[in-house]
Amino acid sequence: MLPQEWRFALGETMNNKIEMEPIGLIHTPYFEHRDIPIQGRFKPEVEAWLEVEKKYESGLMDLEGFSYAILLYIFHGSDKVMMTGRPFLEDTSHGIFSIRSPHRPNHIGLSVVRVICVDGCCLHFSNVDMLDKTPLLDIKPYVSHFDSFSDASNGWIDKHFENGKTPGRATRKNTKDFE
Amino acid sequence: MLPQEWRFALGETMNNKIEMEPIGLIHTPYFEHRDIPIQGRFKPEVEAWLEVEKKYESGLMDLEGFSYAILLYIFHGSDKVMMTGRPFLEDTSHGIFSIRSPHRPNHIGLSVVRVICVDGCCLHFSNVDMLDKTPLLDIKPYVSHFDSFSDASNGWIDKHFENGKTPGRATRKNTKDFE
Repeated sequence: MLPQEWRFALGETMNNKIEMEPIGLIHTPYFEHRDIPIQGRFKPEVEAWLEVEKKYESGLMDLEGFSYAILLYIFHGSDKVMMTGRPFLEDTSHGIFSIRSPHRPNHIGLSVVRVICVDGCCLHFSNVDMLDKTPLLDIKPYVSHFDSFSDASNGWIDKHFENGKTPGRATRKNTKDFE
Repeated sequence: MLPQEWRFALGETMNNKIEMEPIGLIHTPYFEHRDIPIQGRFKPEVEAWLEVEKKYESGLMDLEGFSYAILLYIFHGSDKVMMTGRPFLEDTSHGIFSIRSPHRPNHIGLSVVRVICVDGCCLHFSNVDMLDKTPLLDIKPYVSHFDSFSDASNGWIDKHFENGKTPGRATRKNTKDFE
């Protein structure tokens, strides 16, 4: 049983809806889920760009000095919320919070992309793994001092990357369907 | 000038408000902004926990196999949106999308935390850098094969980490105020 004060806090927060607005739009060459690599790193030659609304242009200042940026966006191709899912790399289901499936509460997607350049309201990048016309929620600088943990154990995923290989199912086309 | 179809798409998306709901709550020993380290990594001994709503409990399955998890949450201590900000590490302002300030559009926070264990609806973790009672939006597994880029250049930040040192301003207490 949770302490009284925590239950109270949880109850209070749960009643709060949070309203967000896209800050811009992401343009990619991927028009269907099945064309997207499971992570952009597996198709590094593909480039894409995003535009932020004019009022956010000055927020892009200094971003070009970073090799990578973290994009947060809406999985606008999904309207389902599931508690488990079968990832593209295998046939076993896992909890939604241990996979990167779009069918999650709040439908927020996260990708670490490689910064090419900033031009006005636009950021050009590679390591692309989202659909065309994806609504953008935020951009954060990727900071290797905070965000890079090369020593991590990666649960059910590690077995697919043994010996430094890219897994056979690196694009969704190779799997039966989009899940 | 953007192609017609893209301008159309951007205009359409900008009119869409997105409604989100917290999936749970984060409990930490930090009750004031000034006590929080600029990144949890600088105070690895501090532990915290989060609880997800009962209906999301099964989504935590298999997360314990990962060393790290990415938490997305609301910067509920901020009601400002700024396009530039002065980060805690220095006195120069930078674009909001090249700093990790809470005063950003949509107020989404992101932390990579170290997984200690999962117990029912709760995840216990270290690398804590958020306020107590922070509303949680999502949990994703941190996958070093996708998310770790140790070779990154980190713009204005790198000079503070030269020679592998932790910067002097590693906690906010050392800076003049909360910005």
